[in-house]
Amino acid sequence: MKRTLGVCYYPEHWPEAQWAEDAARMAALGLTWVRIGEFAWKRMEPVEGSYDFDWLDRAIDTLGAAGLKVVLGTPTATPPAWVVAKHPDMLPVDADGRVRGYGSRRHYCFSHPGYLAECRKIVTAMAARYGSNRHVAAWQTDNEYSCHDTVLSYSQSAAAAFRDWLRQQFPGQGNDGDIDALNAAWGNVFWSMDYDSFDQIGLPNLTVTEVNPAHAHAFRRFSSDQVVAFNRAQVDIIRAHSDAPIAHNYMGRVTDFDHFKVGADLDIASWDSYPLGFLEDRSGTSDAHKRAYARQGDPDFQAFHHDLYRAVGKDGRWWVMEQQPGPVNWAPYNPAPLPGMVRLWTWEAFAHGAEAVCYFRWRQAPFAQEQMHAGLLRPDSAEAEAFEEAAQVTNDLADAPHVAPVQAPVAIMFDYDADAMWAVQPHGASLSYFGLVFDWYRACRKLGLSIDILPPDTRDFDGYALVLVPGMMHMPDDLKTALAAAHGAVVLGPRSAARDTHFNIPTPLPPAWPGSDLAVSRVQSIRPDMPIDVAGGGQVIGYFEELTGGGDVVLQTEGRAPVAVRCGDGVTYMSGWGDDTAHMRLIQAIAPDLDVEIMPEGIRRRATGNEVFWFNYTTQDVEVEGEKLPPAGVLRHVRPAMS
Amino acid sequence: MKRTLGVCYYPEHWPEAQWAEDAARMAALGLTWVRIGEFAWKRMEPVEGSYDFDWLDRAIDTLGAAGLKVVLGTPTATPPAWVVAKHPDMLPVDADGRVRGYGSRRHYCFSHPGYLAECRKIVTAMAARYGSNRHVAAWQTDNEYSCHDTVLSYSQSAAAAFRDWLRQQFPGQGNDGDIDALNAAWGNVFWSMDYDSFDQIGLPNLTVTEVNPAHAHAFRRFSSDQVVAFNRAQVDIIRAHSDAPIAHNYMGRVTDFDHFKVGADLDIASWDSYPLGFLEDRSGTSDAHKRAYARQGDPDFQAFHHDLYRAVGKDGRWWVMEQQPGPVNWAPYNPAPLPGMVRLWTWEAFAHGAEAVCYFRWRQAPFAQEQMHAGLLRPDSAEAEAFEEAAQVTNDLADAPHVAPVQAPVAIMFDYDADAMWAVQPHGASLSYFGLVFDWYRACRKLGLSIDILPPDTRDFDGYALVLVPGMMHMPDDLKTALAAAHGAVVLGPRSAARDTHFNIPTPLPPAWPGSDLAVSRVQSIRPDMPIDVAGGGQVIGYFEELTGGGDVVLQTEGRAPVAVRCGDGVTYMSGWGDDTAHMRLIQAIAPDLDVEIMPEGIRRRATGNEVFWFNYTTQDVEVEGEKLPPAGVLRHVRPAMS
Amino acid sequence: MKRTLGVCYYPEHWPEAQWAEDAARMAALGLTWVRIGEFAWKRMEPVEGSYDFDWLDRAIDTLGAAGLKVVLGTPTATPPAWVVAKHPDMLPVDADGRVRGYGSRRHYCFSHPGYLAECRKIVTAMAARYGSNRHVAAWQTDNEYSCHDTVLSYSQSAAAAFRDWLRQQFPGQGNDGDIDALNAAWGNVFWSMDYDSFDQIGLPNLTVTEVNPAHAHAFRRFSSDQVVAFNRAQVDIIRAHSDAPIAHNYMGRVTDFDHFKVGADLDIASWDSYPLGFLEDRSGTSDAHKRAYARQGDPDFQAFHHDLYRAVGKDGRWWVMEQQPGPVNWAPYNPAPLPGMVRLWTWEAFAHGAEAVCYFRWRQAPFAQEQMHAGLLRPDSAEAEAFEEAAQVTNDLADAPHVAPVQAPVAIMFDYDADAMWAVQPHGASLSYFGLVFDWYRACRKLGLSIDILPPDTRDFDGYALVLVPGMMHMPDDLKTALAAAHGAVVLGPRSAARDTHFNIPTPLPPAWPGSDLAVSRVQSIRPDMPIDVAGGGQVIGYFEELTGGGDVVLQTEGRAPVAVRCGDGVTYMSGWGDDTAHMRLIQAIAPDLDVEIMPEGIRRRATGNEVFWFNYTTQDVEVEGEKLPPAGVLRHVRPAMS
Ligand SMILES: [Zn+2]
Ligand SMILES: [Zn+2]
Ligand SMILES: [Zn+2]
Repeated sequence: MKRTLGVCYYPEHWPEAQWAEDAARMAALGLTWVRIGEFAWKRMEPVEGSYDFDWLDRAIDTLGAAGLKVVLGTPTATPPAWVVAKHPDMLPVDADGRVRGYGSRRHYCFSHPGYLAECRKIVTAMAARYGSNRHVAAWQTDNEYSCHDTVLSYSQSAAAAFRDWLRQQFPGQGNDGDIDALNAAWGNVFWSMDYDSFDQIGLPNLTVTEVNPAHAHAFRRFSSDQVVAFNRAQVDIIRAHSDAPIAHNYMGRVTDFDHFKVGADLDIASWDSYPLGFLEDRSGTSDAHKRAYARQGDPDFQAFHHDLYRAVGKDGRWWVMEQQPGPVNWAPYNPAPLPGMVRLWTWEAFAHGAEAVCYFRWRQAPFAQEQMHAGLLRPDSAEAEAFEEAAQVTNDLADAPHVAPVQAPVAIMFDYDADAMWAVQPHGASLSYFGLVFDWYRACRKLGLSIDILPPDTRDFDGYALVLVPGMMHMPDDLKTALAAAHGAVVLGPRSAARDTHFNIPTPLPPAWPGSDLAVSRVQSIRPDMPIDVAGGGQVIGYFEELTGGGDVVLQTEGRAPVAVRCGDGVTYMSGWGDDTAHMRLIQAIAPDLDVEIMPEGIRRRATGNEVFWFNYTTQDVEVEGEKLPPAGVLRHVRPAMS
Repeated sequence: MKRTLGVCYYPEHWPEAQWAEDAARMAALGLTWVRIGEFAWKRMEPVEGSYDFDWLDRAIDTLGAAGLKVVLGTPTATPPAWVVAKHPDMLPVDADGRVRGYGSRRHYCFSHPGYLAECRKIVTAMAARYGSNRHVAAWQTDNEYSCHDTVLSYSQSAAAAFRDWLRQQFPGQGNDGDIDALNAAWGNVFWSMDYDSFDQIGLPNLTVTEVNPAHAHAFRRFSSDQVVAFNRAQVDIIRAHSDAPIAHNYMGRVTDFDHFKVGADLDIASWDSYPLGFLEDRSGTSDAHKRAYARQGDPDFQAFHHDLYRAVGKDGRWWVMEQQPGPVNWAPYNPAPLPGMVRLWTWEAFAHGAEAVCYFRWRQAPFAQEQMHAGLLRPDSAEAEAFEEAAQVTNDLADAPHVAPVQAPVAIMFDYDADAMWAVQPHGASLSYFGLVFDWYRACRKLGLSIDILPPDTRDFDGYALVLVPGMMHMPDDLKTALAAAHGAVVLGPRSAARDTHFNIPTPLPPAWPGSDLAVSRVQSIRPDMPIDVAGGGQVIGYFEELTGGGDVVLQTEGRAPVAVRCGDGVTYMSGWGDDTAHMRLIQAIAPDLDVEIMPEGIRRRATGNEVFWFNYTTQDVEVEGEKLPPAGVLRHVRPAMS
Repeated sequence: MKRTLGVCYYPEHWPEAQWAEDAARMAALGLTWVRIGEFAWKRMEPVEGSYDFDWLDRAIDTLGAAGLKVVLGTPTATPPAWVVAKHPDMLPVDADGRVRGYGSRRHYCFSHPGYLAECRKIVTAMAARYGSNRHVAAWQTDNEYSCHDTVLSYSQSAAAAFRDWLRQQFPGQGNDGDIDALNAAWGNVFWSMDYDSFDQIGLPNLTVTEVNPAHAHAFRRFSSDQVVAFNRAQVDIIRAHSDAPIAHNYMGRVTDFDHFKVGADLDIASWDSYPLGFLEDRSGTSDAHKRAYARQGDPDFQAFHHDLYRAVGKDGRWWVMEQQPGPVNWAPYNPAPLPGMVRLWTWEAFAHGAEAVCYFRWRQAPFAQEQMHAGLLRPDSAEAEAFEEAAQVTNDLADAPHVAPVQAPVAIMFDYDADAMWAVQPHGASLSYFGLVFDWYRACRKLGLSIDILPPDTRDFDGYALVLVPGMMHMPDDLKTALAAAHGAVVLGPRSAARDTHFNIPTPLPPAWPGSDLAVSRVQSIRPDMPIDVAGGGQVIGYFEELTGGGDVVLQTEGRAPVAVRCGDGVTYMSGWGDDTAHMRLIQAIAPDLDVEIMPEGIRRRATGNEVFWFNYTTQDVEVEGEKLPPAGVLRHVRPAMS
């Protein structure tokens, strides 16, 4: 598979006279791709029904003439003022009941039928115009679904659609669903919460105290489905006019819709990788960690998403659609990357199988919201720092243009629905499914392992020496069967199979593993300043389940409570949320044949089918494989192709 | 008085086929009481005016047949959807003006007349049906008034009722009150805030800056009165049909209605005791303290409420209606209790005179909001950890079934209205009346003292060697007279008698103690990181008044400012909020004849008329009375009956 | 110029019988001024159109008869209930969309035309009645504009007025402005945000994500202009009836309207100085600093405002209209001042050229919102601590009644619009223009320097050895020219000239200094726990720009990045936000002839034309000029008049 570079560009922001020179400089830099169009609705349709594509024709021609391939975005993340004036109730509503107003972007509720109709019209017009344009080599739908917390909307439109969705979930005899079935499934008897009809069901915000978790969870599933449907509407239209692959650019640590379901309708997964911004605003790490990696980004956060979105992409096709090139504008603090990091980030993506890495953006905009966001060029068109690093990657690629994909030895399952369930019921302050899975991911990386992330409908685990399935609160029976039959070591828990599909605790008690009497007898959440020591090293932090039954104890607390217990042939249940040491110890104990190697602090390793990479995320020289790897250094060793 | 155990049970949550077995197990465990019904409105009245009590008849029969006595709760904390559909404006409104929605519990405004009418109807139906049922041995009104911050509602109903309440407070010639009297009493001249009529008066939320404290205080008094009236409406109906005693289950650290006034209409005070949850979410203690007691609960928080609710109960009758049996679901962190703590908590309650301790709940619910809340049974009906501890209490009770009530040597007055006044005007961040009184209570407990809490209308202090009346911002003249005449030592301050009944500073300046020229000349609130050292030991924290006049100085600062000053025969005014050391020193200085003994860290002592108990709240063995008391240990010594 | 004292008094709060005695005591204390009337609208106009000035006539007569001069305030900060009943939509709306209710003060939106009309009426009535009263020696408009965050209102009135204001900013052919010009100026193309007409423009709150900074900045400029217009309406009316000077009493650290523009319509600037309250609630300093100065106030915060308001006042005329006399009621913690501090604060004001210092308030009110706010008298009319200190100032003044104003050696420019720009785009958490300028001010004070603050339209810098212009994001060309021609050393940066007038980044890149190729190539905001060391001492904190071009490097980081660079003859650009050490080092490096002397910790110096003062803000004796200066001590040395 070929490795390529690209950039995000906004011809509508610049004088037309500048386009050709920009295109020539892009091509000279060795870029292949240029993404355009995704915020230009007002330029394409200045007045309802009156389209102006001439400028866009010329922009595409200019870029194409320079040898660049265009990724064309649909502009539905930025409805113009006239759309909102026509549909004033299309605006999303936050959990506090406040209407989120016009004046920035993503100001729409996924459930508003009038807005969906407007989207269909503009996408149809674009697809018809550019579906067979030879320079348009790929499409992007909308932009960053869920960014700015826009999936969960508490509008009237959402409420109406939620009720319809529930009627489908609990179908009745006629058109109106079976409300008794819903009441029973949700346990509404608990506080006399039974509904007489679906019309009484509201959204799960602003209740006096905690809402029924079944109610909250249903709303999250519904909201995810609304994103899937919204995206599918655009995909169907584009496919009717174009053979080019379709992508969406996902974000980092966004879990409030099921990316696997959206991804199933698309050809390519892509994401927007902002290592420094994400470290500050969503990594959830300690201040000491943020200080250590302030200019490099978390050593695992991007890698995790690379692996995740490789799983989301059809046949593993994935890109970085936006790559941070310098300081951004939106994090609490916005430092500049360490010299070399833009190159390192690019190579980390390629090492994980990215087809393309596109820098965001070509030229820093001197106006509007992102004027403090660096680009490859400064606002005055001089080269910014990242320009030279991108050029270096172009040179690097001359030696390493292709990647041989290969199955990793370790798999981690990721289930967006489980994340929703933890969000609905964290049980302990700041606990999250994402956090748990990411902690396991980091432990693997610290052992030098390469990892595949698996969607929750995976049933074939062949070839994996280790399969990690932590925290998946609902596990279908056939998943249990498939995992029980896996050849590699399997790790479950905590909270595995802890709920049925309607958020009830099943009996027999979880995990109810086939052939095992292991049961979670009692559940605790723990103060973060009161970790529990694991005998022999490591700690349990945040979450701890007390177990009965099961087989051999692999890890236990200093007080001899079981922490990791065998519950089947090669299956181990870990009842606590471990720290890195505890996780690493368990991996080494249950999968002794894995090729692990404890990485030096801040060094990470990643293997493809024909290469092994080492990355230095620290600010110091580190000796790796007998060589001195400088800060931000990338070491690449070729190995015989393995797959 | 007999000591008994009980449990909270929800027959409507379980198949009817399971009821008999549950009842048999309860009886076998030695339980006397089973509380039911308080969330089952929808099952009792599925449709307006159409009652279904057959299932409840059978449930009560089944429990009664097993020898259990039923506490029957009115279900008015959980109005069903049809009630809300009929009265959409019955929902409470929070201080930000947001309507608090349907979907959990306590979704009603105490001031809504339509909702009150619905409550009268369902309570009348229940009282008529079960008023003479031989198994119904007690009643509970509603559930946990004020839980989830539901006393202060800023709805239209509340505003209208508040205006009517004010007209009663300031009666005029005709039906419309005397607005000039209100303006004068509140000092509305201050910022041209005088009203022309009561119709102009709004609720004290969302003002541009601080509202007039007289206005805010009146609203708190009104809101408390609304709870009293709401409860009384139910009591009157039940009494018309039943001779059984009536209780309400209060909560921990709830001070926004006057429990003494509600209690005056009831026969039994009860409360819901969640030591671990309360430590985390409302004790207000330091992280170090929370770590030290994470699995045991604060050593004084429950004891304080036991003593408080003994004072609230008629003739000192009080229960624990809900006792935490294991991890709960609602605190920021929810660890499991140290083994033995459920038994310890039960005995601490009995040592304070509880008639009954009921565990919440029988079986952990696998569905809805409290599915992570432990019970005596697990969801699969296996015994949870607390089951065995409850059984142990049953055994313990064989030796110690009765308690001889006795007057304690120390009394602390508790005035809900004073708490409201501090809440309206804390003067320093995070200062509260509850916190001040509780600090004094803890100092007494650390000296091994048993304590009675007194309502603010107490005028007879006979038999008390020490009477503590800290922070009571409004003191009626006859209270001053009674305290001045008390035989024991009396401690006042800070803020004692600092305001008249309409929240104005009186002249002569406070405390204006009979026969003393002591005056608070200036008032300071202090940064928590700047305590003031008391000469000889201890510190003043948070609050400090500068005094003029008065008699002997008992405590003074290192800088020789008076901290505790005599202002009458046996009466001492403490001008600062002291730490434990300062409080303990003052007690020892002014009440030298008290039988004090400084308790080892985490050990507490409590005497009844015929027993002395020691409790070990630590995680270590501690030597007590020459015996080694293990963690969670309870030591009981019989002594000659003293009253 | 004569130095005088005064007090704030509310005759309407007290029985008329007490007025004469109060007046006599004021006069005996040596007070000259008494400010009255500013909250008494309800007493002056109890019913719409029905005025009652008789009581005020008598109050003024009584005060005047005692020899006091009256400052008469217009009462428009406290519209009575009948005004609000007449104009219910006059209430301001906060950024969350909540109407801010009646019941305290400042409950009006500056943009409401109906309320403005009511204000004109009451001011006209007052001006007509008292315009030629011989005792009314000065006027005050309204009270503390912006206090309680009341300048930015998101009401319908504000939205309508904002659209009209924008039409004026972008004038078109007809009455409706040029919307294309606005779209172009704001860069609305960025996210398809172009408007079709001004009617579509909303207020910049509640948008999904960050609003266009040009939009937010325009709203801040508009809101400032609304305050100017509101104030001017009153000034015009008063001037038509009175020759007495007109003042307004500004607050501390209020930057959301342009005080220079309001001040241009007034005769005297005054402000309300609450050193202890401001330290706690708005100084933004560390807890350690707050502990060190809890009873003294920040050593520079008041001085800064003295110098600032001297610049705001016409011909440098300025007062302290309200001086904290003891503990206040509104800060998180409200300690008492160190003995002597009220006197020190008064003298610090006189040392900066105050004509008058008025204590707030005469007698502590026993009722309403400020009942915990100390006065010169206690509520029982006994002397409070500050009374004696005021008397001491009266004695002090016998020796030093006059001040000789003099130009300081150092000037700092202060631009309210720059503060708005930083507020719109801080780029790093908690960064502010005020904070940057104040840090420079403090560095100067620590060097013993006296400082003049200059308005942003200053073009003549003659006589200043050092001119500091940090952080002024928009700099007109003629300002650059004037600064380039200044004789003294000039310091710019960071962010100097970083934006054009519509918040766009100009090309050539900032600062685009005449004759220099210095350019800010990249901008970073830095974690506060990751300061960058400056070679030789000091640190860069919070903000750091990377530079290209320019001349000699004056300061650089340990890593050799430039921190301060020459960009012209005597002009230095500082690219980082420095700590005190870095700022002091730069001053000493570029202005070697300045008479600097590093002050002992907590000691400050200030020179007038004929005096030098030293103030001891510490709690220890400190040796100053060979004398032992006690805590709160003031040392005054006479020097030959210098101007
Ligand atoms: Zn983006
Ligand atoms: Zn409860
Ligand atoms: Zn004021």
